[in-house]
Amino acid sequence: MNQPALKLHPDDTVAIALRDIDVGEVFDQTKLIEPIPRGHKFAVTAVKSGDKVTRYGQVIGQARLDIAPGAHVHSHNLGMADRLNAVIHQDTFRADPKFADRTFDGFHRSDGKVGTRNYIGVLTSVNCSGSVARFIAEAADKTNLLDAFPNVDGIVPIVHGTGCGMNSQGEAYDTLFRTLAGYAQNPNFGGILLIGLGCEVMQVADLVGGRPIRPDGTLRYMRIQNEGGTAATVTKGLKHVKEIAALANQCRRQPAPISALTIGMQCGGSDGYSGITANPALGVASDFLVSSGGTSILSETPEIYGAEHLLTSRAARPELADQLMDRISWWEDYTSRNGGEMDNNPSPGNKKGGLTTILEKSLGAVAKGGNAPLGGVYQFAEQIDTNGFVFMDSPGFDPCSVTGQIASGANLIVFTTGRGSVSGYQPVPCIKLATNTEMFMRLEGDMDLNCGDIISDGVSLNEKGAELMELLIATASGNKTKSEKLGYGGVEFVPWQLGATM
Amino acid sequence: MNQPALKLHPDDTVAIALRDIDVGEVFDQTKLIEPIPRGHKFAVTAVKSGDKVTRYGQVIGQARLDIAPGAHVHSHNLGMADRLNAVIHQDTFRADPKFADRTFDGFHRSDGKVGTRNYIGVLTSVNCSGSVARFIAEAADKTNLLDAFPNVDGIVPIVHGTGCGMNSQGEAYDTLFRTLAGYAQNPNFGGILLIGLGCEVMQVADLVGGRPIRPDGTLRYMRIQNEGGTAATVTKGLKHVKEIAALANQCRRQPAPISALTIGMQCGGSDGYSGITANPALGVASDFLVSSGGTSILSETPEIYGAEHLLTSRAARPELADQLMDRISWWEDYTSRNGGEMDNNPSPGNKKGGLTTILEKSLGAVAKGGNAPLGGVYQFAEQIDTNGFVFMDSPGFDPCSVTGQIASGANLIVFTTGRGSVSGYQPVPCIKLATNTEMFMRLEGDMDLNCGDIISDGVSLNEKGAELMELLIATASGNKTKSEKLGYGGVEFVPWQLGATM
Ligand SMILES: [Ca+2]
Ligand SMILES: [Ca+2]
Ligand SMILES: [Ca+2]
Ligand SMILES: [Ca+2]
Ligand SMILES: [Ca+2]
Repeated sequence: MNQPALKLHPDDTVAIALRDIDVGEVFDQTKLIEPIPRGHKFAVTAVKSGDKVTRYGQVIGQARLDIAPGAHVHSHNLGMADRLNAVIHQDTFRADPKFADRTFDGFHRSDGKVGTRNYIGVLTSVNCSGSVARFIAEAADKTNLLDAFPNVDGIVPIVHGTGCGMNSQGEAYDTLFRTLAGYAQNPNFGGILLIGLGCEVMQVADLVGGRPIRPDGTLRYMRIQNEGGTAATVTKGLKHVKEIAALANQCRRQPAPISALTIGMQCGGSDGYSGITANPALGVASDFLVSSGGTSILSETPEIYGAEHLLTSRAARPELADQLMDRISWWEDYTSRNGGEMDNNPSPGNKKGGLTTILEKSLGAVAKGGNAPLGGVYQFAEQIDTNGFVFMDSPGFDPCSVTGQIASGANLIVFTTGRGSVSGYQPVPCIKLATNTEMFMRLEGDMDLNCGDIISDGVSLNEKGAELMELLIATASGNKTKSEKLGYGGVEFVPWQLGATM
Repeated sequence: MNQPALKLHPDDTVAIALRDIDVGEVFDQTKLIEPIPRGHKFAVTAVKSGDKVTRYGQVIGQARLDIAPGAHVHSHNLGMADRLNAVIHQDTFRADPKFADRTFDGFHRSDGKVGTRNYIGVLTSVNCSGSVARFIAEAADKTNLLDAFPNVDGIVPIVHGTGCGMNSQGEAYDTLFRTLAGYAQNPNFGGILLIGLGCEVMQVADLVGGRPIRPDGTLRYMRIQNEGGTAATVTKGLKHVKEIAALANQCRRQPAPISALTIGMQCGGSDGYSGITANPALGVASDFLVSSGGTSILSETPEIYGAEHLLTSRAARPELADQLMDRISWWEDYTSRNGGEMDNNPSPGNKKGGLTTILEKSLGAVAKGGNAPLGGVYQFAEQIDTNGFVFMDSPGFDPCSVTGQIASGANLIVFTTGRGSVSGYQPVPCIKLATNTEMFMRLEGDMDLNCGDIISDGVSLNEKGAELMELLIATASGNKTKSEKLGYGGVEFVPWQLGATM
């Protein structure tokens, strides 16, 4: 790491220290007049009181005092700016369709979607059927039931902690319903066995009723109370699994266009490098994917809070900006009625790390979304019915947000992490991007790609974005991710629980 | 089943049809003047408009019209009564200490508590360490690690969907903290390995910090990010498990007094028989247990709503009545700020089954608690520090409520069910009581005791209560329940999620 600091955009008024910098050291033409801790900012030009201060080429706040070149820029001299006037330019959409002619080898489903894996899902309506789902999967494993079906990747119990003790209508019910119905339709499942208890609020009959879920016969269902208890349900369930697997086994990997890829973008365990390395590299890949016909999903609404103007200003149609702002308003209400608040960020830890304003913090998270036009705004777990760059509302909590993205139709997850998140999400492969080389080396058994070399070796964002695209295609075609090899995914299905548990 | 109907208390003004009854049939001296569907009520005496109507010897409402003997009593002629005036007498506490000299064979812990099982728990601070906890348990199973430790019952991963994406202070955090700390202290664990990721809100250091959790060295902890990722954590975790198991293996079953039993009482998948058979039979056993020195925990606050006067009138000290009413007020606020309500019961399905008022419905649930004085009121997952009959606040949702009871210190769970709930809750055995003989026959592989014979064979509540006490003692001493034999408990740890998921 040669350079002591990084200017993220040519027009920026601040640079970021990549290590602790002493007074008197020089970066570009700027001589430091205060010591700058790693991750913190200093002025690279004279800033007058009231001037907008920019990082990522975007306003992160307004100077409260005159700031000299080489001075530390933080809470003592930088305040919030008016968000509505904070967009000073739109970064360029890297509309490079260089991957448009590439294909991946996927499982073509009867509804036109393409899976990147071919699992049998044992889906549950309620916690009370979760153990039976796992008994069925374990019995199938023990009896090597799937050996006869080499095109099937495995059996995945989808188990959770809710489905009853809730109102049978309203937001909480609708959200769980969309999540379960969405998993039932995810193209990475070659077939679904749905198991309920019988007396729960989330009724199996409603989940399968009336809508065209898997009209090809690859969805079956049972209720434990109707079948005569645990043992009878497991026995009959194994029979169902065998029949579903025979159907799913007929599906083989065939070339599919890049437009059949839908990636869920995620960050978790972020650090000071997330907004500089892995997140913008993922943003470049998102631009490449979108301009090649594919779909990328940005989520984690609490983490874009403060930078939503950067998304609304990219809205392909005015009503999409309205829809996003509606979700922001909903979140303000949701947190306030639960005794919290949206703008308690940056946290003390964030500030210690050098982040000054919520604008600045959220800019790093939004960087994952590149610069493509915003083509859709979706509720949590809502089916995504357009290609391009879209936003799906969700909490920032990783397993919950990813659960929504998979329910919405994601067939790949790309997850940036600085501290080292190790989770995986069956039935969808999850590619882990390390934001820094040190963590990548330490957790190499869990990380799929190092983005720390953007700083440590000067790799360009464009190069890293293209490298990531190649990894996406290889993974979509069957190459296993680290978390798949380790066997992750058995406990990471986490529906968003809204409303009171009764 | 000879008798067509049942009068639950000698003074009752209504009887309950045990089958559909025709006009003209006679029960006691009452000739039916309307057809009565099974589970519904009819008057056994003349009731004047404005009179209190009683069932279970308790007021369930007030007549809105004059009601003739043999007439159907339901929503058309029965309304709510003023709850404060609804207590007409206190049923007798069956203070029969006939089990006071009995013992069970349990595992005596260094803090004075006694376990009914001797498991190693692999406890997780956050969803993100859940898979690693399971990998450790699976690897221990595959390598037969526990074969050298015959007094250890097995390894139980305690995995959940929360621990991050939440505020780091307040009600939601405190509730989860109590739950995890409570599991770490449950006497059915001979030792605990606690695993965190590292960057989560619910920090391992806080969970183990400062308090005397397992000062005997049977609690160890690790963080995945500190250990160098998944593989390194699993390897080191197995080493920890082996050392913990060696300590836990030194504990052997020794006679313990009945006073060391703490039962969590629960109902789930209730039906029209729950309040007549299994619940009051459990109430008798609770009275026997309490008068023999033991502890029984009633919970499920939404299901006692409307009948809380029957608990406050039994409060051993006035402040306990206040504490219970404080929890009721909290629930009214909790449901209202989440857009629901407490008194939307009985549901349409309840009404169809013959339940008219919320008083009547909740009376059936409260029957589980017998008639002992109320000796304590506790928050969800709060450590229970008194013997006797106590109340622990919780939702009615089975896995969540049982999770709170186990965290509070329950070493046995007794679960009544009419529809047939099949779940189990490691590390604590769960005894299933069937409310009706038909369901018991159909789900015999899942049910431990039939209480339907109270109606079908005229078994008395006293006899059934004593039979249940014998089953409690045998189970506490090591006899396996049906759900333990089936392998339940891997997914039923469900902490109560309060507050917004961020
Ligand atoms: Ca994030
Ligand atoms: Ca739509
Ligand atoms: Ca996240
Ligand atoms: Ca109940
Ligand atoms: Ca319950």
